[in-house]
Amino acid sequence: MTVELISVGTEILMGNIVNTNAAFLSAQCVALGLSCYHQSVVGDNEGRMEEAMQTALSRSELVLISGGLGPTRDDLTKEVAAKVMEKKLVMDMRTRDRIQAYFDRIKRPDITENNWKQAVVPEGAIVLDNDNGTAPGLILEKEGKAMILLPGPPGELLPLFQKKVRPYLEQLQEEKMYSCMVKICSVGESRAETMVADLLEGQTNPTIAPYAKTGEVHFRITAREKTQEAAELLMEPVLKEMKRRFGSRIYTVREEETLEEVVVRLLEQGRLTITTVESCTGGLLSGQLVNVPGASKVLERGFVTYSNEAKIQMVGVSPVTLEEMGAVSQETAEEMAEGGRKAAGADVGISITGVAGPGGGTEEKPVGMVCMACSIRGEIRRETFYFSGDREKIRKSSVVQGLNLIREELLKYLEGQISGESA
Amino acid sequence: MTVELISVGTEILMGNIVNTNAAFLSAQCVALGLSCYHQSVVGDNEGRMEEAMQTALSRSELVLISGGLGPTRDDLTKEVAAKVMEKKLVMDMRTRDRIQAYFDRIKRPDITENNWKQAVVPEGAIVLDNDNGTAPGLILEKEGKAMILLPGPPGELLPLFQKKVRPYLEQLQEEKMYSCMVKICSVGESRAETMVADLLEGQTNPTIAPYAKTGEVHFRITAREKTQEAAELLMEPVLKEMKRRFGSRIYTVREEETLEEVVVRLLEQGRLTITTVESCTGGLLSGQLVNVPGASKVLERGFVTYSNEAKIQMVGVSPVTLEEMGAVSQETAEEMAEGGRKAAGADVGISITGVAGPGGGTEEKPVGMVCMACSIRGEIRRETFYFSGDREKIRKSSVVQGLNLIREELLKYLEGQISGESA
Repeated sequence: MTVELISVGTEILMGNIVNTNAAFLSAQCVALGLSCYHQSVVGDNEGRMEEAMQTALSRSELVLISGGLGPTRDDLTKEVAAKVMEKKLVMDMRTRDRIQAYFDRIKRPDITENNWKQAVVPEGAIVLDNDNGTAPGLILEKEGKAMILLPGPPGELLPLFQKKVRPYLEQLQEEKMYSCMVKICSVGESRAETMVADLLEGQTNPTIAPYAKTGEVHFRITAREKTQEAAELLMEPVLKEMKRRFGSRIYTVREEETLEEVVVRLLEQGRLTITTVESCTGGLLSGQLVNVPGASKVLERGFVTYSNEAKIQMVGVSPVTLEEMGAVSQETAEEMAEGGRKAAGADVGISITGVAGPGGGTEEKPVGMVCMACSIRGEIRRETFYFSGDREKIRKSSVVQGLNLIREELLKYLEGQISGESA
Repeated sequence: MTVELISVGTEILMGNIVNTNAAFLSAQCVALGLSCYHQSVVGDNEGRMEEAMQTALSRSELVLISGGLGPTRDDLTKEVAAKVMEKKLVMDMRTRDRIQAYFDRIKRPDITENNWKQAVVPEGAIVLDNDNGTAPGLILEKEGKAMILLPGPPGELLPLFQKKVRPYLEQLQEEKMYSCMVKICSVGESRAETMVADLLEGQTNPTIAPYAKTGEVHFRITAREKTQEAAELLMEPVLKEMKRRFGSRIYTVREEETLEEVVVRLLEQGRLTITTVESCTGGLLSGQLVNVPGASKVLERGFVTYSNEAKIQMVGVSPVTLEEMGAVSQETAEEMAEGGRKAAGADVGISITGVAGPGGGTEEKPVGMVCMACSIRGEIRRETFYFSGDREKIRKSSVVQGLNLIREELLKYLEGQISGESA
């Protein structure tokens, strides 16, 4: 079954935003076993949009369209799609009520008139309720083909696809795609690929595809089978081989699990609490940990110690260490982690101090040099990393490697606990 | 003059990589005053590539194609382009020498045979030397139209475009595009557009285009003119009218300036320091402020006070307030901001405490309810927001509105300073 993507939006054509939706949707469709041969982008222009839709429908069975469903007069996607699929537009009372409830919830009583445009839908369309915005998703079917419309903002498109579109696409085909995700940090992309080059070569079922994101590499293993059990049997040897090669550098094989979730899970498992002491990342690491619902059980407080005075006063770093070794040093990192841990009365302390740039680098301590320490009840590991890229990339990489450092130390600690108990 | 982009690459179609080249090339073309109405993506397939090229040539004067110029048998772009433009392929001795020199430079004496394929060019093509790789860029002209081929890796494409393609495109046209960006927070997208609906209507030169991102709305005003001065004259009345309508809700009109940069700039202007006290955002606000290079001058420390104990011990919130009003209340927010300000010895304190969900919401305090306070030397403003979306969106919206709250209070404070001085 073939699928084709059309992204609608002048901001994509003008280069104001990068089309991450297309990458997300393509990857999802490929994972579902659909073949995707074309992607296109058009602006909010009736004629060109209609032409793009007609062309796509003539060569693909499914057309996935994102963007242009909002309340403004620029938003034409629904209207043009209805024309191409020969459907009348009608008011959908359920959607009207949902929009009303949405505005009630965010306490905006003054709903502007143009918002009601979003409650108008092509007759007979499957309406996909949008929990994160006003415009619903829509599926229009005609003569064995379907056009699927999704709102453009990624915060609305992603959950709507996962919750509503994916089940719709799944029931269209007999064999399903099952996949698992091998997520790795602390190995670079090209090195990771080299380590499994022979597995990537000539793969058919299951397939293995690498994806890189800042500080991490993910491999998706996908099998096409009629049942979950049969698919798992197919994937098992590949998964086993990858585990053998990457070992504990794999932090999860569950698609939906994030690195910070693994860290929170391990902390809960060991009934441990954690505190953060951040300099160059300025709170990003604690911010990421708190992204896990229920993080309050393990993280009670954190310190942003940007200046030397803050490091001394908040977490008791020694002025002598700062003077002699510098703020960016393993010694300072160690005192930050251990001092923060004690000040917070926590079991685990993690610290990050580095040169994020663009200024402040020296020959000895270049931009991108970041020192970290992790203390579990006084057992301390120190690390120095040298990251590339701009300020933002250095800070993001620091957060990933900081989380990974905690993870590695927790694994060791928990292992010690178990062998201690059994001894 | 119209331009159209074709990105060649199975890895884009499969969603393995995000098409950042398209965003870069579009933005560059728009800045050069070219009109871009279509982008498309095709895989390394001869038939589909030829069809895409023919379609593009039929409707656009310039076709910019990236990817598929490498040494492997998959790389077909040049061959298909030569066919479509009816050119013979010939060996280019200068390119052959350059490739030889390239391999000498990176000390790889063992050049594989397939590399010489890259020295073959369509007869009469303008060859664009690639300093960062082996495959040259190529410009093929025919009957007043041109096809421009560029290698896919961004590290090769970007400099090649800047150094070789941009001058070629510049000499093709007389007028250029100039633009500025009106950036607004604290007004929703549909409301913002309603406020300028009449300006958006029937615009030609300059044009106004709205863009939404979490918690913000941006309007790009673009003028097409021969000189910067003439363009600014065209844009001035529109800009003035937008300033009249949105007032201080516009935080900048500079394309590259971010909200956190404005906050840091205003703090520096008033020679003020700031501290952050965060609960549900867990450090994201301080993390965002620290993203501004040189933020150390204004932010010396911050507090992540996730638990009630942390709020009491770190910034002196009263247990009675927490007991009677709750952790998510304007009263607690006020004590967090003011207590944190005093504990840090800072001029400004900003606090955020809310229900980010998914659990923890009640009828009285639903998920998405976020209380904030901003204190400038004891002058306090308190606010309650009701955000929609999931945990991540609520937290992101909180950061944007928290930054905006500081900005608004700083503007008032600085105005007071000025009128105080002149009194």
